[in-house]
Amino acid sequence: MAKKITSREKDYSQWYNDIVQYADLAENSGVRGCMVIKPYGFAIWEKMQAELDRMFKETGHENAYFPLFIPKSYFSKEASHVDGFAKECAVVTHYRLKDDSEGNGVIVDPSAKLEEELIVRPTSETIIWDTYKKWIQSYRDLPILVNQWANVVRWEMRTRLFLRTSEFLWQEGHTAHSTQEEALEETKQMVNVYAKFAKDFMAMPVVIGTKSESERFAGAIETYCIEALMQDGKALQAGTSHFLGQNFAKAFDVKFTTKEGMQEYVWATSWGVSTRLMGALIMTHSDDSGLVLPPNLAPYQVVIVPIHKSDEQLDEITKIALSVKEELELLGLSVKYDNRKTHKPGWKFAEYELKGVPVRLALGNRDLENRTIEIARRDTMEKATHKISNVGKKIVNLLQDIQDNLYERSKNFREENTFTANNYKEFKDYIETGGFVYAHWDGSPETEEIIKQETKATIRCIPVGIKEEPGNCIYTGNKSNKKVIFAKAY
Amino acid sequence: MAKKITSREKDYSQWYNDIVQYADLAENSGVRGCMVIKPYGFAIWEKMQAELDRMFKETGHENAYFPLFIPKSYFSKEASHVDGFAKECAVVTHYRLKDDSEGNGVIVDPSAKLEEELIVRPTSETIIWDTYKKWIQSYRDLPILVNQWANVVRWEMRTRLFLRTSEFLWQEGHTAHSTQEEALEETKQMVNVYAKFAKDFMAMPVVIGTKSESERFAGAIETYCIEALMQDGKALQAGTSHFLGQNFAKAFDVKFTTKEGMQEYVWATSWGVSTRLMGALIMTHSDDSGLVLPPNLAPYQVVIVPIHKSDEQLDEITKIALSVKEELELLGLSVKYDNRKTHKPGWKFAEYELKGVPVRLALGNRDLENRTIEIARRDTMEKATHKISNVGKKIVNLLQDIQDNLYERSKNFREENTFTANNYKEFKDYIETGGFVYAHWDGSPETEEIIKQETKATIRCIPVGIKEEPGNCIYTGNKSNKKVIFAKAY
Repeated sequence: MAKKITSREKDYSQWYNDIVQYADLAENSGVRGCMVIKPYGFAIWEKMQAELDRMFKETGHENAYFPLFIPKSYFSKEASHVDGFAKECAVVTHYRLKDDSEGNGVIVDPSAKLEEELIVRPTSETIIWDTYKKWIQSYRDLPILVNQWANVVRWEMRTRLFLRTSEFLWQEGHTAHSTQEEALEETKQMVNVYAKFAKDFMAMPVVIGTKSESERFAGAIETYCIEALMQDGKALQAGTSHFLGQNFAKAFDVKFTTKEGMQEYVWATSWGVSTRLMGALIMTHSDDSGLVLPPNLAPYQVVIVPIHKSDEQLDEITKIALSVKEELELLGLSVKYDNRKTHKPGWKFAEYELKGVPVRLALGNRDLENRTIEIARRDTMEKATHKISNVGKKIVNLLQDIQDNLYERSKNFREENTFTANNYKEFKDYIETGGFVYAHWDGSPETEEIIKQETKATIRCIPVGIKEEPGNCIYTGNKSNKKVIFAKAY
Repeated sequence: MAKKITSREKDYSQWYNDIVQYADLAENSGVRGCMVIKPYGFAIWEKMQAELDRMFKETGHENAYFPLFIPKSYFSKEASHVDGFAKECAVVTHYRLKDDSEGNGVIVDPSAKLEEELIVRPTSETIIWDTYKKWIQSYRDLPILVNQWANVVRWEMRTRLFLRTSEFLWQEGHTAHSTQEEALEETKQMVNVYAKFAKDFMAMPVVIGTKSESERFAGAIETYCIEALMQDGKALQAGTSHFLGQNFAKAFDVKFTTKEGMQEYVWATSWGVSTRLMGALIMTHSDDSGLVLPPNLAPYQVVIVPIHKSDEQLDEITKIALSVKEELELLGLSVKYDNRKTHKPGWKFAEYELKGVPVRLALGNRDLENRTIEIARRDTMEKATHKISNVGKKIVNLLQDIQDNLYERSKNFREENTFTANNYKEFKDYIETGGFVYAHWDGSPETEEIIKQETKATIRCIPVGIKEEPGNCIYTGNKSNKKVIFAKAY
């Protein structure tokens, strides 16, 4: 049965689901809102993890691990944090099951009720700052630059694979500093790391900005974010970096002795990206034929498919294919040779197209005679036959071309779908069309809320470095000194 | 304040706790039974993960990710599994908190009760086989060779950092096969991978064997394990690999169509190692001065400490130190140069001794004049002054020496503490002394249980490849055809 992907035009949402399913990335599990990340999807996530982890370590961070569970009372310590996070969450109330005396399998043992309920972490600021209290006494103990790779749970009513799931995987950096300046520097450094990762590896252009007060992280003084534009014209927040000020230090009473012998509260940041990036990656590049992967994140960058009529032919082709594979691997590429006899070449072509493998090589009998090989690139679907000699260098260049092309293509898409609205009528039209809409806003949460109610658009960010220019709020007409970006968002 | 480690002789248990604390490996958290793995401890775990992950991939496995939560009913599907795992576990009963109307912070929202409770995974066979049912139709879909790196929770009343914690980190491999033979091969292959890892990276000798029925994994037909001997004469189970037969396939109704068109149940294995390995590593090599790390798992293998009187001297020393660091890094070694002015050389020496850094280099003023460097090895505490020229090759060899020496030392320790008991009196004496005790056993769970009650010793394993020899059970005198290993165990 052919796996036929719904076109974006016909049903964008179904297109996304089809790709996640047919490219073997993830699926829903028997547990509501929790996904299974399948091996092919997980291999992409592992590539993301490896690159991010390297970038974190290059900027001086170390990994550590903190408990999955957080006592309920910890959440109450930071006032705004509890409202933002402790509500929709998984609550552990008991620690034992027992056999049902009436024979209904196992039941919760009522005698094993916890004195204090435990929350499955939705984010770890509270448990980490409870720990940092023990680690920090003096300025000599600072900075602490720690990251954690972990699973977190936020109970979601409407879930979508990768984009919004009750359990998801992420990394959360939590740093502690002796000065406000240093913490602010760290906050900006990490949002820049995310932007660089998005560009260099995901081939995804992003806008770096700060959040408006109402979109800020619960407990943060300032939230930096990277915002990307998806193919349906909706924005996707792909990463955030928070300047937490002294809020968590005060909530958990974490002070340090300065060089001068004074007691001061510690300054904090936190920053994270999650498996949501998988959703962003899919929706940035993929097309109606399936997933399209940037070479820098592809589990295998090249697949070689033999086209043979007999087993003898396959043996001949395999010899050449393996030497090509070796040549490419010596150049640092990851290559799969698919010589399974259980599947036909046509099936394999369709499969690797669905899976977004950047380059497909095909070797048939005529290629053996002519010493040629067919090279097909996934991004443009172009294919051509080339001499097999020196194919390695050709493919190295081609992969770089594909990586660059995907970035350029999505950057062009974003530019074509970025608008400036000079009045509310224009604004509503652009929002209806989809895309990033630059507009003046008077800075008040009330205006933001009304616009959201009327158009479903939210302020995605106040772009870093946007030029100041006097203007009037598109909604109230009140004064504004710079434009912000509005969009409907995931 | 000097960090003084309790000696093994004085209090072995406190010695272990002191090392975990003073070497900055882990600490207890505010959540009962859950630990915080600190950056230095986590860096060792990351090294373990990286090597194991490479070995898993070399043997054809892929990583994936399955949900943290398992519906309660899943556990009831495999009869023996539910008894073994579904009892002492964290139970999620609610999905929301709300503000207490009486002002007591947040409380569990009684209206947000789950229809079916969710268990935080103690192990993932059930949720994975529920998923495999969707993945497996035909022999073409087999084998499935999947591994997962994850956190799991088993509610423990008495916990010890790394050795027994309510939450721990581990990997769990779950494979599906079309034949019994293939599944058995996989089971054995993976226990051998663990043994090889223990030897080559942890420098820890292990016995490979199978478990007696009563020590078997709940749901397994056969459990292979690796058993190591700690310095207090107690055994530690360091990894297990289970042949699950068709038990889980039957429980979750997972059948496949054979090449011949028949419907058959799938054959299964599962295998895992956990952060418990950290405890094994600590107790295998460390001494009364602190942690001792095998070079192949040390976060940094070499530390360079400058010994200076003035800032000018430090500048001079730093030049040489950085060139040594570069030379060593080019040879593939990981090196830390600690030129902090906030701490004195003596403090640093003590710190790196505690942390078990395999090689410490010291550079002082006289070394600059004489073109020498002091090299100290952690395992034997020997130190000597060497010409600085060609120090790279010297240290590469030294690290290999240390790695080999640690293995030999712990192998000798094990041999000196392995005994053969010919009667129950001897047996009890040896068990009292501590160590592995080979003894004939009649094969009955009842005998095993009585011996356990009377001596606290359990059957660690029936060693693979042990020669058959007629004998009599040390307890009952009944016939036995081979010896098994008894010991007190962690």
